[in-house]
Amino acid sequence: MDIASLETPVPVVDLGIAEANIARMQAYADAHGIALRPHIKTHKLPALAHRQLEQGARGITCQKLGEAEVMADAGIDDIFISYPIIGEAKAERLAALAARVKMRVNVDSSAGIETLARAARHGHEIGVVIEFDSGNKRSGVVTVDAAVALAKQAAATPGLRFDGLMTYPTSAASAAFIAEALPKLRAEGLEPAVLSGGGSPKAVHTHEMAPVNELRVGTYVYNDRMMVAAGAAGWEDCALTVHVTVISRPEDDRAIIDAGSKTFAADIMPGGQQLGYGHILEYPDARIDRISEEHGMVDLTACAKKPAIGERLRVVPNHVCPVSNLHDRVATVKDGAFLGFVDVAARGRTL
Amino acid sequence: MDIASLETPVPVVDLGIAEANIARMQAYADAHGIALRPHIKTHKLPALAHRQLEQGARGITCQKLGEAEVMADAGIDDIFISYPIIGEAKAERLAALAARVKMRVNVDSSAGIETLARAARHGHEIGVVIEFDSGNKRSGVVTVDAAVALAKQAAATPGLRFDGLMTYPTSAASAAFIAEALPKLRAEGLEPAVLSGGGSPKAVHTHEMAPVNELRVGTYVYNDRMMVAAGAAGWEDCALTVHVTVISRPEDDRAIIDAGSKTFAADIMPGGQQLGYGHILEYPDARIDRISEEHGMVDLTACAKKPAIGERLRVVPNHVCPVSNLHDRVATVKDGAFLGFVDVAARGRTL
Repeated sequence: MDIASLETPVPVVDLGIAEANIARMQAYADAHGIALRPHIKTHKLPALAHRQLEQGARGITCQKLGEAEVMADAGIDDIFISYPIIGEAKAERLAALAARVKMRVNVDSSAGIETLARAARHGHEIGVVIEFDSGNKRSGVVTVDAAVALAKQAAATPGLRFDGLMTYPTSAASAAFIAEALPKLRAEGLEPAVLSGGGSPKAVHTHEMAPVNELRVGTYVYNDRMMVAAGAAGWEDCALTVHVTVISRPEDDRAIIDAGSKTFAADIMPGGQQLGYGHILEYPDARIDRISEEHGMVDLTACAKKPAIGERLRVVPNHVCPVSNLHDRVATVKDGAFLGFVDVAARGRTL
Repeated sequence: MDIASLETPVPVVDLGIAEANIARMQAYADAHGIALRPHIKTHKLPALAHRQLEQGARGITCQKLGEAEVMADAGIDDIFISYPIIGEAKAERLAALAARVKMRVNVDSSAGIETLARAARHGHEIGVVIEFDSGNKRSGVVTVDAAVALAKQAAATPGLRFDGLMTYPTSAASAAFIAEALPKLRAEGLEPAVLSGGGSPKAVHTHEMAPVNELRVGTYVYNDRMMVAAGAAGWEDCALTVHVTVISRPEDDRAIIDAGSKTFAADIMPGGQQLGYGHILEYPDARIDRISEEHGMVDLTACAKKPAIGERLRVVPNHVCPVSNLHDRVATVKDGAFLGFVDVAARGRTL
């Protein structure tokens, strides 16, 4: 069976490209003495997480307990959950994870520390990293004093180990926060072993932006249209493409492909909706200007040559991480040869 | 176990509300002599498809063969695929479906008829409905002459049966197209048994808009924020809500909930991104103004009372159909009691 005979729409991962992307980011981290801790949210595949570790990554990052459970089941033994974990049921699951792998968890509130403390009462130490906001206005404390107070609370809680600080994404504001926080933490006798930053688009500028010693990145493994738009990758570095088929040509300047938001997700480019929903490698002047769940509407106005019904196209999605989350499996290829389907084991693990 | 003890984020379907929504749309269709053929894309649950049929629906609508296969496996025997089916592999799957259930399929090109003809060569007749465009600029022929030509081609093809016309959504333009097409079809000796329209927001105005005799609607079974914004439902008619938890309160006017685009999908309201990503029933003045994959950023500026970390909220998503497609299972409730989880059997069936 070859790739051209697979039914569409189908996400196809070029393992050669992914491998090169993994190697390149590892080389960057190694050159700058930064520990690479890849975020598995992009691929959600144990096999690629293992490749990242084999190439030198120091543990992995997950967003949810359910992802960490899948990765622990696959034999990965050092996991950072870079997301606030809240509530009794989640504390019990965290305790079960901490009993079998090394766990480190994000905290940005006293309630978060209470959840971790409850988990740690089962007898397995949990590392705590305080999240601070570098201007992203998501989770994370907004003042150094709040970070120091949580660090003290964590260090004083039986079963918890204060590991350091984290933010997302790394920026100049991260550096300013760290510069203010370090002396205040040290004045309390607290030394952060980990200063963790993240974000693929500017990852290779980490050392210029802030003195972090850990890098959490996900998207770099596949890359996507946003990474290309940010100048962080070329189309040839995009490891995941969605293979689609033209199923309708109602007008000369319009094609319909068999993929919409159920296949690509509905994430829009930073520049806005008018930038469309993906890049067609074979027709770079075409524009997927609208999507519904199963249809992609392609404007061919700017195309000299136009595709026919039945023609197969390869699309680089705007944002690749939610694409992995939509599909039960991905096809894998290497050097043009189909290697088989791989289950997206951590797909849909929102809990 | 009660609903409040389920881990979040979790989609919860109130079967009482869904049942009432099904009954109301059926009553409308019955009152106007229109055959109701619900689109299962919204719930993707065989159990609800069966309830729709038990209440009077005449068959179901699916978008993809994979959805139809799930529904046929569940014993549903009259299926319309309202989507162009193209290619040899899909022809074989369609043939297998036609061998066991009554199948009708959308066509908007000669290539589409060729696919259906190939399927029909296995010996089981397939109904053909020609899709026309009512201004939506998606799939569907744009001229009456093209529709008539395809109808003739279908009628002349062994194993295919010309069944009629379809469009999406129903509009005044649908009426104009039908008015022009009917005499031209009849002049060719072709009588369309089916004139099929669709779209939940204006469904109960179908009889005022165009002389269709079949109504394809999906969203009405659950409703969502878009349906409420369109004046087609109230919050009390929204059968699916996503239960979430506040996991961070970094600032007085900002809460973070444990759900983002992996839970709600990233569909934006017709009015644009600034309208946010869902409606929080307990805090109607709060605004989910940004989402990332696992975070929902909630602006509390307009709220007199503000939620605390750990508090559970119910969110009506912007667009409910892709929510069903993100989750392996939904929790079901009736009269406030948790009835158990149901697998979203047709989730992810993009093929």
